[in-house]
This record gives sequence, structure tokens and C-alpha cells, in this order.
Amino acid sequence: MAVVVQKFGGTSVGTIEKIKAVAKKVIERKEQGNEMVVVVSAMGKTTDSLISMAKEISPNPNKRELDMLVSTGEQISIALLSMAFHEYGYNSISLTGFQAGIKTEGHHTKNTITDIDLRNVKKHLKEGKIVVVAGFQGINENGDITTLGRGGSDTTAVALAAKLKCICEIYTDVEGVYSVDPRVYTKAKKLDAISYEEMMEMASLGAGVMETRAVELGFKYNIPIYVAMTHGNKVGTMIKEYDETMEGKIITGLTINDDVLMITVNNVEYKSRNIALIFDMVGKHNINIDMISQTAPFEGHVNVSFTCSKEDSYAIAEIAKALQAEMPQIELSQESEIAKLSVVGIGMMKQSGVAAKVFNIFADNNIEFKQVTTSEISISYTINSSDKQKAVDALAKALEL
Amino acid sequence: MAVVVQKFGGTSVGTIEKIKAVAKKVIERKEQGNEMVVVVSAMGKTTDSLISMAKEISPNPNKRELDMLVSTGEQISIALLSMAFHEYGYNSISLTGFQAGIKTEGHHTKNTITDIDLRNVKKHLKEGKIVVVAGFQGINENGDITTLGRGGSDTTAVALAAKLKCICEIYTDVEGVYSVDPRVYTKAKKLDAISYEEMMEMASLGAGVMETRAVELGFKYNIPIYVAMTHGNKVGTMIKEYDETMEGKIITGLTINDDVLMITVNNVEYKSRNIALIFDMVGKHNINIDMISQTAPFEGHVNVSFTCSKEDSYAIAEIAKALQAEMPQIELSQESEIAKLSVVGIGMMKQSGVAAKVFNIFADNNIEFKQVTTSEISISYTINSSDKQKAVDALAKALEL
Repeated sequence: MAVVVQKFGGTSVGTIEKIKAVAKKVIERKEQGNEMVVVVSAMGKTTDSLISMAKEISPNPNKRELDMLVSTGEQISIALLSMAFHEYGYNSISLTGFQAGIKTEGHHTKNTITDIDLRNVKKHLKEGKIVVVAGFQGINENGDITTLGRGGSDTTAVALAAKLKCICEIYTDVEGVYSVDPRVYTKAKKLDAISYEEMMEMASLGAGVMETRAVELGFKYNIPIYVAMTHGNKVGTMIKEYDETMEGKIITGLTINDDVLMITVNNVEYKSRNIALIFDMVGKHNINIDMISQTAPFEGHVNVSFTCSKEDSYAIAEIAKALQAEMPQIELSQESEIAKLSVVGIGMMKQSGVAAKVFNIFADNNIEFKQVTTSEISISYTINSSDKQKAVDALAKALEL
Repeated sequence: MAVVVQKFGGTSVGTIEKIKAVAKKVIERKEQGNEMVVVVSAMGKTTDSLISMAKEISPNPNKRELDMLVSTGEQISIALLSMAFHEYGYNSISLTGFQAGIKTEGHHTKNTITDIDLRNVKKHLKEGKIVVVAGFQGINENGDITTLGRGGSDTTAVALAAKLKCICEIYTDVEGVYSVDPRVYTKAKKLDAISYEEMMEMASLGAGVMETRAVELGFKYNIPIYVAMTHGNKVGTMIKEYDETMEGKIITGLTINDDVLMITVNNVEYKSRNIALIFDMVGKHNINIDMISQTAPFEGHVNVSFTCSKEDSYAIAEIAKALQAEMPQIELSQESEIAKLSVVGIGMMKQSGVAAKVFNIFADNNIEFKQVTTSEISISYTINSSDKQKAVDALAKALEL
């Protein structure tokens, strides 16, 4: 019998009725002759409400304890889903991250999976059970409960599929992967297939469908990932190796990311040691920097800007204080009304001129950009949030997305 | 440094504000030079709301999954309490049942602690941390999460204290142990001290302050258990070895239990095999029988009554069906408007006449009783719920409670 890993996100298990519907969907697949491993996230807004309880206790709660706290969200979902299987007459067992052998390392709230000890999962599959695994969590070598960071349930699912050498199906509240976020650009097209590389790029650039790490894992182990809507039977998107059927387009997608905080350190004395100092300090707070830019030196001073996630803003005051202790003349400012747009496509590797095309579209529409970065298969721009809709419409139209 | 185990119940950690207050209370004790182990229950009504989610999925949810589900309640409390310690500048770590080495065996939802592997707790105490342990839960030899049944957090606390050879302090929403439940008899007196034996008897008879098993453990390992109110500084009750200071009273307390379901099996052919069959069947459903009575045989038939907890009522229909398959003529009836009153006192071992005294009080007040049982230090009566208040007032007054 083939094993199938199915993952259901928080919205898909948001209510008891939805959990029952998920159980029926899994059973349907099992009845087709498959062994089922089901990964679930926390119900709906559970994680958010747990985090807000923590914030009532401390503005910056201890991260080891935060992992202990939020991991209960998935534990609730797995228990309820497994109960539903029992209720429908199917043998089932729920496993927390540690029971499923999911080993992690790294910083609390941002762990990565190092290995999965499949013995327990395989034992229960062999006994004919539907195995329900808590997404998003694992255990580190100290025996602490850890989490993989937001969206980590996808990673759990793909990692399990990689280890079990089987397909991974991600069920969510959207129909699949779109060329552009349909909430922003209503005429966006759903893609039937997309390459791992393009999907990774789109995920890392903020397309909310899947987390980058999960796609990366699929790419590494060549595990096909099928993304589709939980309810109904509409065909979704297959994420797989790049092949000729995907060719012919230079740009596959446009991603929009609103979770951008731009920090500018003004009046930095122009020495490379100073620039290093800034990013040392930022690194010490485990902040992932996205784009970096620097003004031309003027009277021996420069302004250094970088972007990061808005959720890192709590650390900025502390970083400012530490930096000012070393460089009293500097000043920090932050802007949060920023959006990042990125165009993505494997075709860009063979064809140049995409950047120029985008610059022209921006110029034609009076849109100023703040920063630009490029990768092999993408170009990203930060712009003012107020220009976002105008930019998306213009780009999507011109690039036929 | 002396180790102290403190346990805080669900009401004591029912809100974020209360969790902060508990943290401050523990810190006060630590500052007196103690190493602190803190056991907590789930916040307020968390357990109830988790169970009601489970019941929406199944009227009789899989018990292994129910343990998986409800154990999240304590996991949330320990994480939040540990965060509060960190926020106040104290090093702390929260441990789930499995992380605290609490090993259990038995049936899911009704497990018992078999041993505690203290290595993890001791390691963290040695590092100066306040160790916060999830009450009510453990892990069995399959690696499944288990729970100890309602009130099991007390057992966790006393078991930890027994293993650490230290005092156990149980903080709750009442001032201590009363001679009679003050919600029913407002003139009831708080006891300064009570023997393990009397407390066990009172707990098992339904005095809500502590669970029997917890007191039993304290008795077995001679661990003093101090019961007091969480908030404020009023003196509570010390549960300890019987000594001369407790002498002089025949009756220490009167307990009232409303969680009584009386099942009567009518028209049973009078053979001992048949009576055995009934209790076999009941035993198979893990129902704890409390009192048993039987009518005198009439035309070769008897009626057999027994009492159990109301929470076992779900199994009664199934038991009736199974019994009728063997004895088609029987009929089952159940009564839930029943209360059980018990008078408890070690002094009863030396003085007789308590039963007669109670029967006289009942007769004087026109109260009929349904069943009577006695132990060395207690006598229990089931009566109609409608007579409860009258009986309590009369007994408490006559016995000077």
C-alpha cells in the first residue's frame, strides 16, 4: 500500500464541523487503498490567542516557554481529529512532535528539523492506524518541546513525506498557487504546475500559500507537493521538478509582501567596521534581514537601510540603544508602510531585460521604488504601500499573469 | 536548602492576573531560602471546555485521545507561570508530566503514578531554577500521554514531595479543611489539623478539598500536607500523623456527596451467580461501585442496588442490555436525586454508639435513609437529596461540628 501524507492547515480544522469534514476526506483517500499520515495545524486562531496570553504576562516572553505554550495548539487538533476517526470506525492514533520522532535544533520558536525517527509512525501504520501528527513542533536534544516557526506544519508534512518517500498533499483554504495573490489582483490565474525553484522563490518572497523551507525540502528529496483546497474537489497545483510543460513563460508569478519593516540607521560614519557592527547587533537578536541598501557617502557619513519582518520590531529599541552606545551620533528611524513586490520565473535565467521592463512599468505609472534586489530567478522591489495596488495591476497586466 | 512543593489549583491560576499573583507568592517562599517545585492545574474551566469539544466529536471519545487533549490544559498553565517567573527576573523551567519523569500505568483518564524519575527536576533545581510541573499528567510505558483523573494534580504534588522528601503545600480557593462543607453548613469550623486517616476518609467520601489518593500517598510516605487559601495569609489545615492534640472528639467531620447515582436491578433471580454477573459486568466498564444493598428475597427474587458516580451513567444502558441478554426478566432503574452523608472520626474506633446516635437524629427529623455502610472510622448514609439540608443541619448541630 502506498503511503500518503496529507496536511491540513488551521483554517481547515478551525471548527469541530471542519475537523469532521477533514476526517471524512482522509477516510475517502484511505478507502482508495492508501496508508494515511495526517499532519494538522492548530485550530483557527488558537496560536494567536495563546501568544496573546503570553504577551499579557510579558512583552517578550521566554521563548522556550513560548514553544511549550503554543505547541498545545496542535496537540488539541490531533487529539480531536483522531477522535473523529475513531468515531467513524477507523483505528487512529495521534502523535505529538516528540512521539512522532521529530528531532529539531536551533533557536526556540525558529527550530529546524534535523531528523525524523520514523519507528513509531511506521509501527502504527503497520497496525492499520491512521496516524495523526502534530505539525509545527518537535523536540530538541535537551528534551525541550520546540516549534518550527509560523507555517512549520508544511515543513513537518514534507519532511515526513521525504522520509516516507511518498507524495505530500497540502490542503488549505485557497485553490492552489496563483500567479499573483488573488486577494490583491482578482484576475490572477491558478497555476496547474510550478517548479520547486519558482515556488521556493515565491514562498520566500511572501506568497502565503506555502513556507519556503517546506518547498526546499520537497526540492531536495524530489517529493511532489500537491497544494489544493480542503473542501470541494477542484484541481490544485502540483509543485514538482521543472519540465518542458512549464516552459514558454518568462515570469511565472508576482508576489506581494506586506510584512516589511524598513529600518534606517542615519548618519553612520563611513567605515566598514561600523556597518559590520550594525549587522552584528541585528544578528544577535536573531532577526532575519531581507534587503539592505546604503546611501552614497556624504561628508564621510552614510545612511544604512535594511528590511525585516514587522514581528522583529520589539528588538529595534534595544538595538538602537546598543548601537548608540558605540556610535552616539547615529539615529534610527523605521517605516512600516512598505510593500515588497517580486517577479519570479525560471525563464529569467535565459532571458534578460525583465528588470528593465519592470523599471519602465514603474516609471510609466509614477511609482518610486526604495530598494531592489535580484536573484537568479527573481527581482524584488520595495515600494510605498500606497503604490501597491497600482503597481500590482500594472505589472500583472504587462507581464500577463 | 529545603525543597518545598507547592500546588495551585485551576481557580488559583484561572486568569493571567492570578497567575502573576501565584508567581509572586512562590517567589516570596523562594526568597525565604527554599528550592521551589510548583505544580499547577489547568486554568479555570479549560479542562471542561476541552472535554466539551471532545463530546461534540463523539459522545464517548477515545480515552487515549482524551488524555492527549486534556493534558494540554496543564501545559498551557505551566508555560504561562514559568514565563511570569522569567518576567520577574527568576530563572524557571516548565516541565510536562513526561519531562518531569512522571510514569504512570492503568486505564486512560484514570491512571496512577508508578514512579517518578527525578533526574530532570533535580538537575533544574540544582541550577537554581523554579521548576514548574504540569499536574494531573504523566506518561505510560508506550510513551502515551496519560492523565490521573480529576483532582490528579494533588496526587502529582504529593508524589513529588514524597520522592523529594519534603513538605507539600496545596493552595486552593478555600481556607482549609472544614468539619462540614461550609457551602452547605455555614457555621462549619475550619480544622487546624487533621490526621491522614480522617482526611482520607473525608476525601473518599466526597469532601471536595483534596483527592483521596493524594492524602493516601502523604500517609504512606508521612509527608505533611498543608492545605490553605492561595490568596491572603490565613492559616490553613495541616494534614499529618494522628497525635494527642487531635484527640477528644469522636467525630471530626461530616461529608456531603451529591455525585451519587443509584442503580437498582429489579427482579433478579436469587442466585449468587446472578449477583456476581451484575458486578462483573459493572467492573468491565471500569465503574467504581460505592455502596451495595439488596432487598430480602421474595418469591425467589431480589432487587440489587448500588451507587456510583453520575459520570458513569453513560455506560448504564450498555450494562442493562448485556444483563438482559442473560436474565431477560430483570429491569434497571436509576435515581440521581440522592445524596450521601458520612460522619468521620478516628475517635469512633474507641467509642461505639455513633451509628445509633445518627439513626436517632434521622428518626427525630423524619429522614429516611436508603443505604448504610460503615468503615472503621466512618458511617455513610444515602438519603433523598430533598432531605439533605435538613439532615446536615441536624447532624452538625448534634455532633458539634
